[in-house]
Amino acid sequence: MSSKPLVVFTPSGKRGYFEKGTSILQIARQLGVDLDSVCGGRGICSKCQITPSYGEFPKHGVTVSADALSEWNKVEERYNDKRGLAKGRRLGCQACVQGDVVIDVPAESQVHKQVIRKDASVRPVKMNPATRLFYVEVAEPDMHEPSGDLERLKKALKEQWGIGDVELDFFQLNKLQKTLRQGNWAVTVAIFKDHTATRSSIVEIWPGLYEKGIYGLAIDLGSTTIAAHLTDLKSGEVLKSAGLMNPQIRFGEDLMSRVSYSMMNPGGDKEMTKIVREAINSLAEQLTAEAAIEKKSLVEVVFVCNPVMHHLLLGIDPVELGQAPFALASSNSIEVSASDLDLSNMNSSGRCYILPCIAGHVGADAAAVALSEEPNKSEDLVLVVDVGTNAEILLGNKSKVLACSSPTGPAFEGAQISSGQRAAPGAIERIEIDNNTKEPRFRVIGCNLWSDEEGFTEATRKSGITGICGSGIIEAVAELRMAGLMDESGLIGSAEATGSSRCIPEGRTYSYVIYDQSDENGPLISVSQNDIRAIQLAKSALYAGARLLMDEMKIEKVDRVVLAGAFGAHISSKHAMVLGMIPDVPLDKVQSAGNAAGTGARIALCNISSRSDIEEMVGKIEKIETAIEPKFQEHFVAANAIPHKLDSFPELSKVVNLPKVHFNIGSDNKKRRRRRKL
Amino acid sequence: MSSKPLVVFTPSGKRGYFEKGTSILQIARQLGVDLDSVCGGRGICSKCQITPSYGEFPKHGVTVSADALSEWNKVEERYNDKRGLAKGRRLGCQACVQGDVVIDVPAESQVHKQVIRKDASVRPVKMNPATRLFYVEVAEPDMHEPSGDLERLKKALKEQWGIGDVELDFFQLNKLQKTLRQGNWAVTVAIFKDHTATRSSIVEIWPGLYEKGIYGLAIDLGSTTIAAHLTDLKSGEVLKSAGLMNPQIRFGEDLMSRVSYSMMNPGGDKEMTKIVREAINSLAEQLTAEAAIEKKSLVEVVFVCNPVMHHLLLGIDPVELGQAPFALASSNSIEVSASDLDLSNMNSSGRCYILPCIAGHVGADAAAVALSEEPNKSEDLVLVVDVGTNAEILLGNKSKVLACSSPTGPAFEGAQISSGQRAAPGAIERIEIDNNTKEPRFRVIGCNLWSDEEGFTEATRKSGITGICGSGIIEAVAELRMAGLMDESGLIGSAEATGSSRCIPEGRTYSYVIYDQSDENGPLISVSQNDIRAIQLAKSALYAGARLLMDEMKIEKVDRVVLAGAFGAHISSKHAMVLGMIPDVPLDKVQSAGNAAGTGARIALCNISSRSDIEEMVGKIEKIETAIEPKFQEHFVAANAIPHKLDSFPELSKVVNLPKVHFNIGSDNKKRRRRRKL
Repeated sequence: MSSKPLVVFTPSGKRGYFEKGTSILQIARQLGVDLDSVCGGRGICSKCQITPSYGEFPKHGVTVSADALSEWNKVEERYNDKRGLAKGRRLGCQACVQGDVVIDVPAESQVHKQVIRKDASVRPVKMNPATRLFYVEVAEPDMHEPSGDLERLKKALKEQWGIGDVELDFFQLNKLQKTLRQGNWAVTVAIFKDHTATRSSIVEIWPGLYEKGIYGLAIDLGSTTIAAHLTDLKSGEVLKSAGLMNPQIRFGEDLMSRVSYSMMNPGGDKEMTKIVREAINSLAEQLTAEAAIEKKSLVEVVFVCNPVMHHLLLGIDPVELGQAPFALASSNSIEVSASDLDLSNMNSSGRCYILPCIAGHVGADAAAVALSEEPNKSEDLVLVVDVGTNAEILLGNKSKVLACSSPTGPAFEGAQISSGQRAAPGAIERIEIDNNTKEPRFRVIGCNLWSDEEGFTEATRKSGITGICGSGIIEAVAELRMAGLMDESGLIGSAEATGSSRCIPEGRTYSYVIYDQSDENGPLISVSQNDIRAIQLAKSALYAGARLLMDEMKIEKVDRVVLAGAFGAHISSKHAMVLGMIPDVPLDKVQSAGNAAGTGARIALCNISSRSDIEEMVGKIEKIETAIEPKFQEHFVAANAIPHKLDSFPELSKVVNLPKVHFNIGSDNKKRRRRRKL
Repeated sequence: MSSKPLVVFTPSGKRGYFEKGTSILQIARQLGVDLDSVCGGRGICSKCQITPSYGEFPKHGVTVSADALSEWNKVEERYNDKRGLAKGRRLGCQACVQGDVVIDVPAESQVHKQVIRKDASVRPVKMNPATRLFYVEVAEPDMHEPSGDLERLKKALKEQWGIGDVELDFFQLNKLQKTLRQGNWAVTVAIFKDHTATRSSIVEIWPGLYEKGIYGLAIDLGSTTIAAHLTDLKSGEVLKSAGLMNPQIRFGEDLMSRVSYSMMNPGGDKEMTKIVREAINSLAEQLTAEAAIEKKSLVEVVFVCNPVMHHLLLGIDPVELGQAPFALASSNSIEVSASDLDLSNMNSSGRCYILPCIAGHVGADAAAVALSEEPNKSEDLVLVVDVGTNAEILLGNKSKVLACSSPTGPAFEGAQISSGQRAAPGAIERIEIDNNTKEPRFRVIGCNLWSDEEGFTEATRKSGITGICGSGIIEAVAELRMAGLMDESGLIGSAEATGSSRCIPEGRTYSYVIYDQSDENGPLISVSQNDIRAIQLAKSALYAGARLLMDEMKIEKVDRVVLAGAFGAHISSKHAMVLGMIPDVPLDKVQSAGNAAGTGARIALCNISSRSDIEEMVGKIEKIETAIEPKFQEHFVAANAIPHKLDSFPELSKVVNLPKVHFNIGSDNKKRRRRRKL
């Protein structure tokens, strides 16, 4: 009989024989079991809580007796009195092994726990944050052995945590002495460890044991909107999210207008840099206030953005991105401090990581989508499409991944559409047109009822029905086609041709009226011929980009399609398919990935090794430049029509039945469209 | 007969056989001969100039024929036409070997040239600057192989110079693209290579070949004055020097008053940090303007300073330095960027290096003295004394070095002395008192004549004779002793006792009048009894510090003394010895090192490996804390008298003859001193 008890950990299954009296934390460290500790085993941080199991465990070949662990000691009693220890829990640093035992490490006691994402179809994120907390006891100064407080702190970190080569961020140096004395020579430090360098840096110091946690922001910096997710760097949980319009919109709706603004106005790039940083600051302010955390506990930010936003965020004039050969100032990932980016509402020494750009038109946002969707790990050929003002398109599988960007313009976001508006309460987001009556029914943002359901008028009284947003216009155009109100070329027929009084003349073409309250001084919401042209241009650009990648890959079909961004969140894949926005694929092979760029940002924030992954992946992705590829133009022109081949889509034929209509618009149509009264 | 010609380099003596047609630059690189090149052998920078020698060289065993090198080529002709090539010179990258040859590398073509310091007694500095220039040709962007401009610059540096792991300073990123295009894809970069890390960083980029040079500042940041030396980082030459009063003086003359100011006034440390950085900025502005160099070419600064100035420069509250145990925030060397210290009149990405501190009272200035004087390499026991407002004292030899700091106060600098003033034109700096007549003669700053020489009155009309500076007061006190006007205890005798009418009553003691124009509304310059007490306190503190180190070293005598700082520059060692400022040592064993702290700063600026040297040396120096050592008080009290033992100083007896006088000052002396009329 071995005198050393057997200790088995779950869920890892790691096991070993240890001397009686050894603490569970020590054993976990020796076995490489993932058991957290901030205080290093001093019994004050309570992060190392474990749950011993008693009884028979045939699976592990162990019988655990009631006295397998040492009895509760004073430290545990005091902790339980003060804070309460959940039933069955012990402190791993206090409980010592006395006999064979099975120890469960609950998820919250693991450093590298897995965070389950809401959408269960996607892989979980494993926590491995770049910044972590360490409690350390520092030797007091001694006149006879003079050394700086910093040098003694470094020595303590080396001795107590094995962390060498650590630097204190210069801007933290001025509070070091005070904090050490406040904490009576014990402090908690937040240490950032770069994923490429061998050095670590201390970004914050708190007196004594700091237990309020550290946080990071995952920021999706779009041309139109900025979304920020405040994330707990220990649990990976998103505590709060907030969004803002990108204030740069006043310098130009789309990216190229902003590049032009910078070209035409000396210092214009600096103006735009200033206001976007201010916007990020205000998001940080809002989120820290709402979550009631102190600003200095916000120690990391990860940004994903397109190349123009990337340059404007970093203070680089984006002028080179407006002309061939679209050279980026820097394509690799960038790591700077919060103070470098004037981010004053977070820890000034906090680290900001910006994902690498793939090419001059394919940015860190596309890289984030790649990180989230991992086309490079796919067995089958997957097409990943992320639609914003530009569409980022990835195509590939385990052996090869291609990427391009396509200038779809803002139509998919409801901009430059006659009744268009941004996605906000009151905007029509879903629409159906009855095949027989040609009458529409719709839903607006902020209300779960369809317009022909009881209570709809009452429910939308507050917001009103104010316009049509991006997803609404896409559905509307697809529905017009399916209802036979629009022909293959995208032309709306007259009331006479279609049999619908909702088709009204407007100049030399027709509009389809969805909602009309103009007689009562209310809005007239319709789809005009120009709107359809805008959607046709956008969808052709998107389709042409995807086709170009398929040509490069020498394939005619993809195995599956992942729709990300606005697509995944709002645009119905059925309607996208009808419009011909994406290449033909069975409908059950179309997946929605939600905000994949934002997810990529969160992954990079929570798991530092993912930063190496995406940097490596981006280096291997082959970039296709749509702007100079003649075949892109060919595909673009060819994709203009909306002629869906139903025979290749048995699933689609169940839901749609595209009539082969063709309308002639008479040039003698003199009737004027009813004007909207405001 | 070998077909490969023999190439011999002088002065290095390196030699080897090389294929005909190989360029001298290539050969130098293969042999490890120190031959400069900024353009990498493209024939445009002309840094690789060499001088071939022809004829018989029995010492090298070579006969060099006239056609040993290839003929001048077009590159050399064009260069000669445009700029002129000195007679006999060739461009090493163009001249190719054809036969046996002896090649001299002139000093200006060496990277690691030795810089001869003005004072020939001290070792020369070998150039090995941290920041160097590299000309590099960068690939143009290619849409089909998209990569950032920065990534292509890094690739070019790796390929053309073998420099990997280089980072572009973030604040330079915004001008990278413009500069690359201005230079038509050729740029010159200034790269800083840290002496400890393996990474390098690009601190500036110029379009094309940049030939105007890069510069650094060596700054001696004292409590009272700030001295800056603008240094060419290629040649090591000091182009310009400038000095300023430390503006912090308005918060307190001495260091402890400034620490008190910070303790008593919340935010007081920040005020002092701000104004000292502003002062450094104004010095940078002045020096760059005087030398007509662009501010961004100023890429490095090295600071030496005492611990309190060190903390105030870095923005750290010095409060801990005002009380035992005198803990430094950080004792190691510190490297930050110019922007971290708000140094706006130099390159914002330029690097600032602050030497390590030895202890809470023994600062980076003492470390700089150690670097300059190298007591750790001395065969004999050397005492190095640097006097400012505090005295830094080092004692040691190859086996051991001790250090302490002694609070001498500002008297040695002429402060808190009745007729004292700072060293400026009009201040008495030298003084002699005739042993027989007891009459003084003196010299003032700004005039080379003694006061009893013809033309003195005329020569000093402009400056006037305004007061007495630190070196003057020390000589005056020593001369009073040597002339028998003052006794061992430091007491000035009455006119009756001394036989000199210059000894006049002032309260209950006497003053010695050096210069009196008070009858004509001019100044009355005298040495008062209080002045002598102040000097006695200062010299006792200095002597006690040195004695304390000798006790620690268990020695009674030192082999030699090096006087640095104000001492070396202005205070005569003879008078210092008479006063008993320094321990007994033969006069010919007293050396003057000039401004050793400033020299240490220059060495650290010009030679990066010296930074490792001093960091290592400081780690080994044993620190003695005077403030808590009872023996310091004993020595201090014992050192108060001025009793010189002439028998132990045969050399001194030739110049001085100290009479054994003793004065009694009568308490009934009621006469009032004549008042200075202003």
